[in-house]
Amino acid sequence: MGSEAVQVLTIDTLNPNVRAMRQTSSVYTRKAQIEKELKAGVEKPFTKVFRADVGDCQGGGQKPITFIRQVMALCSYPELLNSDEFPADAKERAKRILGECLGNSIGAYTSGWGLQAVRADVADYIARRDGHASDSNDIVLSTGASDAIRAVISLLLTGKDGAGRAGYMISVPHYPLYSASIVEFGAYPILYCLDEESNWSVSLGELEMSITDAKTKCKPRALVVINPGNPTGSVLSKENIREIIKFAFRHRLFLIADEVYQHNVWARDVKFISFKKVLMEMGFPYNKLQLASFMSASKGYAGECGARAGCVEVINLEPEVKAELFKILHVKLCPPVLGQAVLDCIVNPPKPGEPSYDRFIRETTDILSQLRAKAEFVTDVFKSVTGITCNKIQGAMYAFPRIFLPEKAVQAADAAGQAPDVFYCLELLEQTGISSVPGSSFWDMPGTYHIRISILPQMEELKPALEKLKEFHLNFLARYE
Amino acid sequence: MGSEAVQVLTIDTLNPNVRAMRQTSSVYTRKAQIEKELKAGVEKPFTKVFRADVGDCQGGGQKPITFIRQVMALCSYPELLNSDEFPADAKERAKRILGECLGNSIGAYTSGWGLQAVRADVADYIARRDGHASDSNDIVLSTGASDAIRAVISLLLTGKDGAGRAGYMISVPHYPLYSASIVEFGAYPILYCLDEESNWSVSLGELEMSITDAKTKCKPRALVVINPGNPTGSVLSKENIREIIKFAFRHRLFLIADEVYQHNVWARDVKFISFKKVLMEMGFPYNKLQLASFMSASKGYAGECGARAGCVEVINLEPEVKAELFKILHVKLCPPVLGQAVLDCIVNPPKPGEPSYDRFIRETTDILSQLRAKAEFVTDVFKSVTGITCNKIQGAMYAFPRIFLPEKAVQAADAAGQAPDVFYCLELLEQTGISSVPGSSFWDMPGTYHIRISILPQMEELKPALEKLKEFHLNFLARYE
Repeated sequence: MGSEAVQVLTIDTLNPNVRAMRQTSSVYTRKAQIEKELKAGVEKPFTKVFRADVGDCQGGGQKPITFIRQVMALCSYPELLNSDEFPADAKERAKRILGECLGNSIGAYTSGWGLQAVRADVADYIARRDGHASDSNDIVLSTGASDAIRAVISLLLTGKDGAGRAGYMISVPHYPLYSASIVEFGAYPILYCLDEESNWSVSLGELEMSITDAKTKCKPRALVVINPGNPTGSVLSKENIREIIKFAFRHRLFLIADEVYQHNVWARDVKFISFKKVLMEMGFPYNKLQLASFMSASKGYAGECGARAGCVEVINLEPEVKAELFKILHVKLCPPVLGQAVLDCIVNPPKPGEPSYDRFIRETTDILSQLRAKAEFVTDVFKSVTGITCNKIQGAMYAFPRIFLPEKAVQAADAAGQAPDVFYCLELLEQTGISSVPGSSFWDMPGTYHIRISILPQMEELKPALEKLKEFHLNFLARYE
Repeated sequence: MGSEAVQVLTIDTLNPNVRAMRQTSSVYTRKAQIEKELKAGVEKPFTKVFRADVGDCQGGGQKPITFIRQVMALCSYPELLNSDEFPADAKERAKRILGECLGNSIGAYTSGWGLQAVRADVADYIARRDGHASDSNDIVLSTGASDAIRAVISLLLTGKDGAGRAGYMISVPHYPLYSASIVEFGAYPILYCLDEESNWSVSLGELEMSITDAKTKCKPRALVVINPGNPTGSVLSKENIREIIKFAFRHRLFLIADEVYQHNVWARDVKFISFKKVLMEMGFPYNKLQLASFMSASKGYAGECGARAGCVEVINLEPEVKAELFKILHVKLCPPVLGQAVLDCIVNPPKPGEPSYDRFIRETTDILSQLRAKAEFVTDVFKSVTGITCNKIQGAMYAFPRIFLPEKAVQAADAAGQAPDVFYCLELLEQTGISSVPGSSFWDMPGTYHIRISILPQMEELKPALEKLKEFHLNFLARYE
């Protein structure tokens, strides 16, 4: 008897929805291989991979905010509360968090919703941000924003096949968590293309066209909008948000607003406006729309990706519907407790006059101004290269330039069995060590090719890397023109 | 127009699988209310809820292990690496973890598998535990054990309706994560009853009967076994494990071994033996069975529930199947990084001669011996009460006594619209403040009633609480006899 006789789980018998999820990009996989090869001493035209692929702030060299890390250390090892090395407000914050924990320990489970005090601080933050009340009973803390996003998507599933299954409207391009989860859950992704010409805004005509087309294939349930945009780096205007809200109202869609980059706005002529704020300002009946808005400790100025902390505000949900959301979350017990503490520091930072205030402001201003400078610099570089166009990076952490590939390059990619953008990114990686994400990882945009480059690496590394990228690009054009 | 016109998500339109998941027990809900009432000054026959319901070690007053917390603090705030207050081995460990992180920061994302060094330490731990090799490529770190369990369940889904949908064999009683996830995912729970008379062992006859019965309703894919048992407190014998493995082999089932309580064995005449070890010792073809075995930082001696750290070893999976598992995990980016550090301290604790060794041994021995004493004490108490029988607590963190309810009590419960065990637990809670879990929360065992009581509260609180429980029980019997 061969061992295959006892293999229950093979590539042919595993969950077909998981199989239908897209593979990790071959560029990502090749990056990992190259890093191993470099470690093993294999000679390359570079000594180190330049990671411009992931939205990983501290992985790119950003320094953590001292206040946040002090609170984490104090919560982890409360003996430090007796140390003179920590400012009084960090100690106070740690004591407050510990006081909320059972047994005064971050080692205890919290409620599946998260600590009540942190939820209240999130609600206060949102109320200040929007000028509209927020109820802590509408706030749920989560394991990164990802987990809350998946819980909300799950709640909206209709659980039926064919035309009865739930459809989720999602932009092209989009952060792949959405399509991956929709496909894993057996639902239907209703794709709508963002308007690159008009700075990646959401076009009403496109929304209408895509929902009309989808209605024979699924039951449209929700509309996902990522603002500021990932991968696009755009920031939606209030007018565009109003149009989107009206559209969602007209088609009875649940609004899923991914607003994890709300602190990351760089262009001086735009600002972040939350869907909640606009919807409240529009008044009845729009203020009765159901909305889930997500934020995260991984982005903004903190960039505490490793803490896996996020939250969602759900509005206009009946209590019994929230109880059902709780069921999904409670199965996994609770979000990481130190992550909850991190989020608390972000939504309720040191105040003027408190001992950590000046340092906190200095550090956050420094991080945000560096990111702004890099957003401007990267935009300028991409605008200056032949065969590349690039919208201004208004927000978030990425440039998403369009790459005009010569026909011969497209043929070469085809011969290699690769999508043209993947082919380009792989060549870039092999020749320069620059790791980027091909546009098709954010879903295919027919006829156009893009790459996503993060602005997170430090400026002193970003500058020479973009020089290399430019050189590579011109050589690439020359080779295939 | 009423606001209901814009309510996309109502109790009637939400995911029917989520609705089909069981509600949180009304005892749990009532506990939370009572705690609020106490806070608000409402008079009760008690001043504080006695939480014997959740497996929350530090929530119950257990002290964290110093070495673990020092490593967490050092990783969070590396300035402390310069402090004389921390032992050299804790600093070394923190430096090693930080060195594995991008940007030397726990704020960076790790791989979706977790940090390679931690995976290697887990593999070494398993190899030492079992006397059989373990490959770090088979180890996946996760957000608690829960997340890895759900990922493996998801991977095994067949994605078909009716008789084609995946069936998972799961014991009655069982930790409700399993049935909740199976129901949420639209799969079929194949229930098999544990044999209470024979110390909650797994009966081969029962397994055969339940799979035969299920084959018309689903496609059986996996067999879940929780050892040491939750809620049962039993520890399976090697002979019983061998029988289970043979059964899984015969029916081509994937084995899901929930071994999160592997460090929690109290009876001196039993020991924990992993499924992997038995399967390896049985040789071909059994050593080719596919198995996922879970462990957790939340249990054992560490009890770091709030860190949300766990891992799984998957064996006999083809690389391309593991790549599909990665897809599910990678969607959510990575497990909490400090949780990975905590898990590392557990699987690779201080060694003899290292500065933290003595304290580590003292603290872990203290915790484990206290738990053993409580396991013995609680068993003895429940064995001594009229109308209650209780198997010896061999392992895990719970007593699961059987309560013999008088017919009149069952009628009173019926009149109150409650299951009899829920009725009992609610009365217990209202009268004594003791919070327990009704047996039916671990799925219904026809004709018998149980409660789960955790042994985690400190002995000085546990003793008077069990006295109160005894008194309550005798009054309850007297009232309804």
